[in-house]
Amino acid sequence: MTNNKESFSIESLKDFPFENYTKVFCIQGPLTHRFCYPVIEELLPKNTISIVFNELNEGLKNMDGCSFIWQELINHNADRKSLIINLGGGVVTDIGGYCAATFKRGVHFINIPTTLLGMVDAAIGGKTGINFGSIKNQIGTFSLPELTIIDSIFLKTLPKNEMLSGLGEVLKYGLIKDVSLIKELESGANLNYQTIIEKCVAIKNQVVKNDPFENGERKLLNFGHTFGHALESESHKTAKPLFHGVAVAYGILAESWLAKEFGSFKAFEKVEQLINNLFGTYPFEQLDSMSILAYMKADKKNINGEINYCQIAEFGQVEINHIASETQVLKALSWLGCN
Amino acid sequence: MTNNKESFSIESLKDFPFENYTKVFCIQGPLTHRFCYPVIEELLPKNTISIVFNELNEGLKNMDGCSFIWQELINHNADRKSLIINLGGGVVTDIGGYCAATFKRGVHFINIPTTLLGMVDAAIGGKTGINFGSIKNQIGTFSLPELTIIDSIFLKTLPKNEMLSGLGEVLKYGLIKDVSLIKELESGANLNYQTIIEKCVAIKNQVVKNDPFENGERKLLNFGHTFGHALESESHKTAKPLFHGVAVAYGILAESWLAKEFGSFKAFEKVEQLINNLFGTYPFEQLDSMSILAYMKADKKNINGEINYCQIAEFGQVEINHIASETQVLKALSWLGCN
Repeated sequence: MTNNKESFSIESLKDFPFENYTKVFCIQGPLTHRFCYPVIEELLPKNTISIVFNELNEGLKNMDGCSFIWQELINHNADRKSLIINLGGGVVTDIGGYCAATFKRGVHFINIPTTLLGMVDAAIGGKTGINFGSIKNQIGTFSLPELTIIDSIFLKTLPKNEMLSGLGEVLKYGLIKDVSLIKELESGANLNYQTIIEKCVAIKNQVVKNDPFENGERKLLNFGHTFGHALESESHKTAKPLFHGVAVAYGILAESWLAKEFGSFKAFEKVEQLINNLFGTYPFEQLDSMSILAYMKADKKNINGEINYCQIAEFGQVEINHIASETQVLKALSWLGCN
Repeated sequence: MTNNKESFSIESLKDFPFENYTKVFCIQGPLTHRFCYPVIEELLPKNTISIVFNELNEGLKNMDGCSFIWQELINHNADRKSLIINLGGGVVTDIGGYCAATFKRGVHFINIPTTLLGMVDAAIGGKTGINFGSIKNQIGTFSLPELTIIDSIFLKTLPKNEMLSGLGEVLKYGLIKDVSLIKELESGANLNYQTIIEKCVAIKNQVVKNDPFENGERKLLNFGHTFGHALESESHKTAKPLFHGVAVAYGILAESWLAKEFGSFKAFEKVEQLINNLFGTYPFEQLDSMSILAYMKADKKNINGEINYCQIAEFGQVEINHIASETQVLKALSWLGCN
């Protein structure tokens, strides 16, 4: 994978060589089409074709969603020299990137994340993917966009729970690499999002550059995700589905608890307090521990069926490739309050 | 794409580093499992897990087929360090390669083609793919196996129509690059398959090495496929579905006719006679020309909606990127005898 281009302003669309492509498509959910597409419309070629989902959420990030996109592309005679723009949150950049990477064995794409989560995580680093059955991101590719535009202009219209979801990933970057982000999060209300985003993007880029295919250092980015993904999947069976980044925050909580109980992590209370302050409480009693454990056993990160997670030692120091026994996992889930 | 390893003997399995993998899976159709798997079973790790389709044909080379494979992998706790062996014809190496390339964002795989078609074409060159709707290979990736084993031992059990299918692709290699293959085909019954296979593999490897992502020379390999793919798709609606390589042979016939009518091809009768001798007649009147044209308009190879094909000038000399008008296509189909 070669490095892709990144920009922090939608104005960079003016310099993109759209003339090299036969057709331009823009994949969006309904809200993004209403609130975000108008922001970039003038900067796109006039005959850009919008592919708009009637409804778009994690539950549609699957083969049905792919079928919808591929069929729309075919209906509009997309060819190998077509360009796809993924405009939206992590769901759009994940599934849109996957569809682009596999349509006619791959067409070029641009990612324009419109959520904080997308900006600091999903839209960068070249991972594309869809869920299979109820297992998250089980199918996918490593494929880089031609351009990624991370412009905080879109955050103005973002609902509070979407902002919170992004903060879960920001918390992760702070704990694994940059304590200044933790200080920023602790400072409270008036966060400087432009600074936060640029710091997170820089961390992710550095990590991905060192280890594009996740053989070592990149696994650090999975901190909180071993529990987080499973909590998220299980929560989608209830009336209170967790947003990805919020699930990651609770995953960080569980993994930090494990690090306190079975490792040497001393600052657990500080993590717990910060997560409580930012994300509040969640009715974990509605989630089934055995079912969560089953999700964790199907996690992509596992080798030989052992549950793999990142163990925090202190702020900014996290170790990859720790194994959690089933007993330890169940203890952590019980501590969280799961059923 | 880096070059992969190739071998002309199943004995090379003895040297493969299976110990680097957590689990080994072997994807097969029912006949391959019966006739071919026993030939290699002793050379595989004892705990190799067979994934056997109840039925496997071009009609299952789609998302349903992928779901079956992915679900079986999940059921057997496949992880990122699992290895997939695709044992079978082009359907198995195409869909198995695609499933391997996208499962957990990619696991290693080995191709062991068991048909002549697979040996000379489908299993080599790094193209994976599935059909979408009724459009062939619409979805896929460029992904190379760790090892490809092309051993003519499997041809002993191959039915005659499968052998014929392979000869369609051999004819293609002869016409685009190596007249000695045409002489071989003209010689009749006792073909030396080992020699034929090695010549075809050498041609394909050279072409793919020069142009892995099909920007130029690799398009030569599509000779006969612009018409061939569409004839094949349309024939699957009738009681006489065409085997891929046979459809390619008739595609070569149609494209050679175009080259005679609208280009400078002088040796058309020789091609026509050879194809008649090898492949006999087909009830083209059962195929609908407008429907075939629609397939051709959806072809991956087209740019800007124009139908792209390879035009033969003389034996061993074929030009890429020729455009066929709709009228020309319909004339050629009418000449073939389509409805």
